[in-house]
Amino acid sequence: MGRQIGIGLLGAGWMGAMHSAAYRRVSGHFPALGLEPRLVIAADDAPGRAERAVRELGYEQATSDWRAVIAHPEVEAVSLTAPNALHREMALTAAAAGKHVWGEKPLGLWPHETAEIAEACAAAGIMTTVGFNYRHAPLVQHAAGLLAGGELGPLTRYRGAFLCDYASHPDGALTWRFLREQAGLGVLGDLMSHVVDMAHLLVGPIVRVCAQSATIIAERPLLPPGTATHFAVAPDGPRARVENEDWAAALVEFEGGLRGTLEVSRVATGPHAAMEFDVHGTDGALSWSFERLNELRRHRRPAPGEDGGYATVYAAPHHPDFAAFQPGAGNAMGFSDLKVIEARGFLESIRDGMPRAPEATDALAAARVVAAMARSVEVEGWVAVGDDIPRRSVA
Amino acid sequence: MGRQIGIGLLGAGWMGAMHSAAYRRVSGHFPALGLEPRLVIAADDAPGRAERAVRELGYEQATSDWRAVIAHPEVEAVSLTAPNALHREMALTAAAAGKHVWGEKPLGLWPHETAEIAEACAAAGIMTTVGFNYRHAPLVQHAAGLLAGGELGPLTRYRGAFLCDYASHPDGALTWRFLREQAGLGVLGDLMSHVVDMAHLLVGPIVRVCAQSATIIAERPLLPPGTATHFAVAPDGPRARVENEDWAAALVEFEGGLRGTLEVSRVATGPHAAMEFDVHGTDGALSWSFERLNELRRHRRPAPGEDGGYATVYAAPHHPDFAAFQPGAGNAMGFSDLKVIEARGFLESIRDGMPRAPEATDALAAARVVAAMARSVEVEGWVAVGDDIPRRSVA
Amino acid sequence: MGRQIGIGLLGAGWMGAMHSAAYRRVSGHFPALGLEPRLVIAADDAPGRAERAVRELGYEQATSDWRAVIAHPEVEAVSLTAPNALHREMALTAAAAGKHVWGEKPLGLWPHETAEIAEACAAAGIMTTVGFNYRHAPLVQHAAGLLAGGELGPLTRYRGAFLCDYASHPDGALTWRFLREQAGLGVLGDLMSHVVDMAHLLVGPIVRVCAQSATIIAERPLLPPGTATHFAVAPDGPRARVENEDWAAALVEFEGGLRGTLEVSRVATGPHAAMEFDVHGTDGALSWSFERLNELRRHRRPAPGEDGGYATVYAAPHHPDFAAFQPGAGNAMGFSDLKVIEARGFLESIRDGMPRAPEATDALAAARVVAAMARSVEVEGWVAVGDDIPRRSVA
Amino acid sequence: MGRQIGIGLLGAGWMGAMHSAAYRRVSGHFPALGLEPRLVIAADDAPGRAERAVRELGYEQATSDWRAVIAHPEVEAVSLTAPNALHREMALTAAAAGKHVWGEKPLGLWPHETAEIAEACAAAGIMTTVGFNYRHAPLVQHAAGLLAGGELGPLTRYRGAFLCDYASHPDGALTWRFLREQAGLGVLGDLMSHVVDMAHLLVGPIVRVCAQSATIIAERPLLPPGTATHFAVAPDGPRARVENEDWAAALVEFEGGLRGTLEVSRVATGPHAAMEFDVHGTDGALSWSFERLNELRRHRRPAPGEDGGYATVYAAPHHPDFAAFQPGAGNAMGFSDLKVIEARGFLESIRDGMPRAPEATDALAAARVVAAMARSVEVEGWVAVGDDIPRRSVA
Ligand SMILES: NC(=O)C1=CN([C@@H]2O[C@H](COP(=O)(O)OP(=O)(O)OC[C@H]3O[C@@H](n4cnc5c(N)ncnc54)[C@H](O)[C@@H]3O)[C@@H](O)[C@H]2O)C=CC1
Ligand SMILES: NC(=O)C1=CN([C@@H]2O[C@H](COP(=O)(O)OP(=O)(O)OC[C@H]3O[C@@H](n4cnc5c(N)ncnc54)[C@H](O)[C@@H]3O)[C@@H](O)[C@H]2O)C=CC1
Ligand SMILES: NC(=O)C1=CN([C@@H]2O[C@H](COP(=O)(O)OP(=O)(O)OC[C@H]3O[C@@H](n4cnc5c(N)ncnc54)[C@H](O)[C@@H]3O)[C@@H](O)[C@H]2O)C=CC1
Ligand SMILES: NC(=O)C1=CN([C@@H]2O[C@H](COP(=O)(O)OP(=O)(O)OC[C@H]3O[C@@H](n4cnc5c(N)ncnc54)[C@H](O)[C@@H]3O)[C@@H](O)[C@H]2O)C=CC1
Repeated sequence: MGRQIGIGLLGAGWMGAMHSAAYRRVSGHFPALGLEPRLVIAADDAPGRAERAVRELGYEQATSDWRAVIAHPEVEAVSLTAPNALHREMALTAAAAGKHVWGEKPLGLWPHETAEIAEACAAAGIMTTVGFNYRHAPLVQHAAGLLAGGELGPLTRYRGAFLCDYASHPDGALTWRFLREQAGLGVLGDLMSHVVDMAHLLVGPIVRVCAQSATIIAERPLLPPGTATHFAVAPDGPRARVENEDWAAALVEFEGGLRGTLEVSRVATGPHAAMEFDVHGTDGALSWSFERLNELRRHRRPAPGEDGGYATVYAAPHHPDFAAFQPGAGNAMGFSDLKVIEARGFLESIRDGMPRAPEATDALAAARVVAAMARSVEVEGWVAVGDDIPRRSVA
Repeated sequence: MGRQIGIGLLGAGWMGAMHSAAYRRVSGHFPALGLEPRLVIAADDAPGRAERAVRELGYEQATSDWRAVIAHPEVEAVSLTAPNALHREMALTAAAAGKHVWGEKPLGLWPHETAEIAEACAAAGIMTTVGFNYRHAPLVQHAAGLLAGGELGPLTRYRGAFLCDYASHPDGALTWRFLREQAGLGVLGDLMSHVVDMAHLLVGPIVRVCAQSATIIAERPLLPPGTATHFAVAPDGPRARVENEDWAAALVEFEGGLRGTLEVSRVATGPHAAMEFDVHGTDGALSWSFERLNELRRHRRPAPGEDGGYATVYAAPHHPDFAAFQPGAGNAMGFSDLKVIEARGFLESIRDGMPRAPEATDALAAARVVAAMARSVEVEGWVAVGDDIPRRSVA
Repeated sequence: MGRQIGIGLLGAGWMGAMHSAAYRRVSGHFPALGLEPRLVIAADDAPGRAERAVRELGYEQATSDWRAVIAHPEVEAVSLTAPNALHREMALTAAAAGKHVWGEKPLGLWPHETAEIAEACAAAGIMTTVGFNYRHAPLVQHAAGLLAGGELGPLTRYRGAFLCDYASHPDGALTWRFLREQAGLGVLGDLMSHVVDMAHLLVGPIVRVCAQSATIIAERPLLPPGTATHFAVAPDGPRARVENEDWAAALVEFEGGLRGTLEVSRVATGPHAAMEFDVHGTDGALSWSFERLNELRRHRRPAPGEDGGYATVYAAPHHPDFAAFQPGAGNAMGFSDLKVIEARGFLESIRDGMPRAPEATDALAAARVVAAMARSVEVEGWVAVGDDIPRRSVA
Repeated sequence: MGRQIGIGLLGAGWMGAMHSAAYRRVSGHFPALGLEPRLVIAADDAPGRAERAVRELGYEQATSDWRAVIAHPEVEAVSLTAPNALHREMALTAAAAGKHVWGEKPLGLWPHETAEIAEACAAAGIMTTVGFNYRHAPLVQHAAGLLAGGELGPLTRYRGAFLCDYASHPDGALTWRFLREQAGLGVLGDLMSHVVDMAHLLVGPIVRVCAQSATIIAERPLLPPGTATHFAVAPDGPRARVENEDWAAALVEFEGGLRGTLEVSRVATGPHAAMEFDVHGTDGALSWSFERLNELRRHRRPAPGEDGGYATVYAAPHHPDFAAFQPGAGNAMGFSDLKVIEARGFLESIRDGMPRAPEATDALAAARVVAAMARSVEVEGWVAVGDDIPRRSVA
């Protein structure tokens, strides 16, 4: 199965487990890869979690000290899957040590940290991959290909959204995601980064934004550290203030003049993980939602007097990467499979010494837009997306 | 079938035909109404159209002079279904004559005209109904009732949209809708007025907006007058400039703090007449689209560990007005039926001397928001919805 | 609006009202028709119903004696919308009087009565139309056109179904539909006749069947006559036995060898009026459901490596008859509109002296298949569809 | 990760790869399992395939001789993933050797072989699991639980179907599936076995059937052995006769009297892998399709005057096994994940020495029904499902 490459894990929560499973599966799905990840060591500082990574995720060793992972001589690459507050220091340390980084979005506590990370990684010459996993759905790649090929004609509208219910319950616990010191921005960092990256992939750079945001559930129950998960609900006990936004929406303008809207929520009852886009041109339209990741709705403008209508296209072997998972349409891929594709890209970039999107610079591109949105909320007006990302003070 | 009430028609195009058919059907569906419309006289100045109204729509007489309709002694009420440029003069003349007005949206060429009309009608003491027909879908009324009853808990998000393809073909003809002198605003008047009215009905007044807009297909083929319809396509011949916006989107804030987005397009390939809303609260969510007018998607937050999910509720006899059309769910109502309900409201208001929504003041409420959006586009920033609507000059 | 044609109504219930409304609307939608129905006289023997037909449906006169309607000298054509038990006698009387008949399905209490009716009408030379209204949906006509044109290639599968919930409530009242003397067969007559007619229209004659059936809710509450409607629910009071089948399914073979399944239910919770078909060929597939009558799902086999998928085609002006109702796709037609199209066909056949499908012979073709199914249930085996329909004794 | 258990693979095609990946993943998802599969040896006799199993699927050794796998002393359990013609001999050999068997459906070339296998395995006291993978979707298990709990009230209708397009292309290659010597039955074995098993799980034993079948594409292009896959298309070259059925449908009766229809096709354009069921009772209904495996449509009969409608329930952590894969609804599971759940069941049965469904006796139960259907096709009539399965001669 090819040469072994030593992997270290920084944070063994949800994403830590997803990365680890992807490493274990990647060469089975992509045998031509020629690299076989070896899960050397995992760090997590919550009691028992690192050990669990050995027992359940397949690592050889465990530690509570993430620096030991990066320093480990047999570790060539690390997965950065700790909360946002640790992204900067972990990434910078890894870069300094010349270890490649597969880092989770948003890659930094605040947008300016993303910039710092991207620079450090570039300077160090390491390979980076960022966890913009929605890109990897075969039908998203297919949509990107159709758009690149001009399938839709001149574009007329873009809508991106990520509507989640993970914090929709008023008694949902106050996890790290709601605290500025640990998460930085709220949904602008957590969800809008995905939405912006998707828009960038599909239709190009956003150049101007006007945003609004809201913290809708003002207080949430406190939970003892380590027990909280993304979806935990805790009706009783003391509550504390939510420090970042639950919802945000923006008007946006793309390079070239296309206009659109982007919207994100973590408190949206009804949808569960509705990461979705609609893009329209004079010749057709495409719509996709992560909740039906194996379906692309594709419309082609019919000749007059002919039937049109959105076709529900199922992911199939002629779409990018699908054949590595299933031999025929209708056999669904799942979320985990997307992370396997992401792992493949990370490892290929290392193998070839050639960066592959989505990498740190893509996270930076998204962070610039997110920063402009955050600023737009403050100034209540339009803001150009700029190269400079102002340093934020943590209130 | 009750006492007769004399009706006059001002403009015998699409909406003129829809109003007329509704008058003919209304007492059959609402026998308790006690009023039987008598179609006295129709005006249209396009060659042959008024005569056609006699032959096909059931009027006793035809004229090319709309003033003759209002002046006709046996006409008690008029349907104002001419292009927007004529709304003001027609409505003011009718009000002065004491004739009740069922007027099409947006009721005026520019928002300030809507104000003028609303005032004149109020002063004259006539009854008015405005063609915000989407309100009348039984499931929209049902949704409004659920929202009024607090079904969704505190609201967290509103999305309203009206995505049409009637002008999506680049060779779509330059009808009156694209010209400022005849239509005033583009989609802000034509479609956003509907979207705002729907939002007002469901979740209350909009108090602040930030909008952007775009004219996407800059030039369109000219057509000889009278031959053009809403959906005409004409690839050849000379072209002229489209004078108003094809697309607009806005961030909005409602009284009470709810935030949302509104979006409209007349050039959206894929959707045909996707007048739709999504509204979410901490306890549930509702979604509706005119393209499936007999279906409401309704989500109620489940108890932990219980199944949730959007239910597809079909319009049924326990929903407002449905039983006047069909005895059981699954037997679809159509667009024409909504106009019958609208006619019923108009005639009841006349019968009882009691205004019924949606009336001119509702059109005014929508116009105020639309005016703020138009202003927001100009100033590129947030604008409060105000009582004063600035007079627009036609460029 | 063309010459007047005198209409009489036999039974002023649900269908009676639908026919009447269709007569009133038909020339508005089809001005070239050249015939204007005049609603002369309506018969119903339930107290007050005939009078209500005058007040609400627009008839000039009322009677409790249906023979008076047929005998009326100014009545040229009748709508036969009474319960099935009256179909035979009413139709034969009308035929004898030379009055044209728009009769509701199944046109007869038992299949052999349909044969008798079809013969009598043919012998009398009158025009007939049968209420197989689902045929008239523009997208059904479109589907029929595509199939006739060979769009799907050799056919590989047919599924027809009509799943209703009108009797799904265990406390649903024992209306005439559940009694053999008044209704004849249960769903085989009430619903399967529609399903067979649809299959005949789309893919041709059924030649062999094997069916099973079941009476699922064995007893239902009795209701005083005249008060019951199709959908009435009555939890209390005495109950009596349901005398005919609630559910039936059949394997079928078409002329030419295509095979398929047909299924009907009146006790299906979930669906409301799911009259639907799926038809597949080697080159494509079509699916339609009355619950979304304005949508056709159309699949065309893609070239290898190209995207396929069912397209959701919305009814549009290029589909048969749609333009008589709406100018653009997305503006929904409703069930009532289909009856207007049916009325047009009836009147055109009278105007031209040329039969138009669906007429009595189509009802007979369906009745032959239904009779074979009923027989198949009895003999528990395959039965050929034959010309002879055995006379049934009422148990 | 628990004690190691030696695994052998018999056939390294599609299912061979799926089983192997499942073994590699199972302890990561089910850490409490306490067994860690060790992939000892794989057999395949197509050139290079066994070696590929070493390189790509993670086996330590390869062989072209499947008997060597069963005989291997470190192999405790085998996956039987060769074509149907080999099921019998492989299973009997494994049973004789006391090796546990995870065998693919239909488990035997003909139904009577399934009986022979089930008996031999029972006699040998080995554990068996059968690849009825659709059972394992969390929402299918959830549906089974709801049904077991009486959620739907007395049942009124069942529809099961598996509509595939894998052989829909007229130029699809003549793989082993189309030949009686290698596959036995056509879709009755390949697809109907799944459909029957699902029905058995959800609503209980089928006791009587009446079926029809058809071979729709009579000839297919020959392909050199080893090159063909399930979905291969080959327009040119010589053709040979398809020897078994492409399509089948059956009327069925369940123990207790419920009736329904089952249908399968491998030539259905449009659907891809539409393994689906609809089940209705007087109190509600459930529908599921493998094409949207993370969605269950659930209807509960509403109180009169209340809204009903199918709710789209997304798979979530409160459904069986979902939490082992994703922490929140909307994060899709894929087909591969179902095989991981299947592997878990197999290994748990070995660990505990306790059989777990679906096992060989479930395959036998399905085979009895399939045999009755095959017989019904021959005799053209109803056939009772019996204990005796007649031995078939291969034509
Ligand atoms: N790509 C995607 O779709 C998703 C990305 N994410 C991103 O992944 C990252 C992690 O999120 P989750 O896995 O959901 O969070 P989590 O809370 O499930 O896991 C974080 C883990 O990091 C550990 N950790 C905290 N401090 C540590 C320290 N000092 N040293 C070592 N370990 C430490 C925690 O104990 C925990 O086990 C975040 O940046 C988040 O934005 C999260 C979910 C989805
Ligand atoms: N409520 C709704 O959903 C809709 C509302 N509308 C509104 O209805 C109004 C009319 O629109 P359509 O019926 O679509 O337009 P249309 O172009 O089909 O009909 C307008 C008619 O007015 C006639 N007309 C023009 N000048 C006239 C004059 N001086 N005197 C008499 N007649 C004159 C034209 O000849 C034409 O027949 C507009 O204000 C539009 O905004 C239109 C479509 C949908
Ligand atoms: N095409 C379609 O989709 C449908 C067709 N039908 C068919 O229409 C027919 C009528 O059904 P519905 O209108 O639903 O029933 P209904 O019960 O609503 O109406 C039948 C009417 O006939 C009247 N009637 C009974 N005996 C009479 C007599 N001796 N003289 C005069 N009137 C008499 C009743 O009082 C009642 O008003 C049936 O044959 C039915 O199969 C019904 C519903 C839908
Ligand atoms: N549970 C499910 O959903 C599915 C089950 N299946 C079942 O799995 C079984 C295998 O099907 P696929 O994997 O699709 O077929 P396949 O054709 O992809 O794989 C079969 C493999 O067996 C090998 N083989 C043939 N003869 C052999 C021998 N004598 N010794 C060793 N290996 C030999 C072939 O070379 C081939 O690699 C069948 O019984 C089929 O019914 C197949 C697909 C889906």
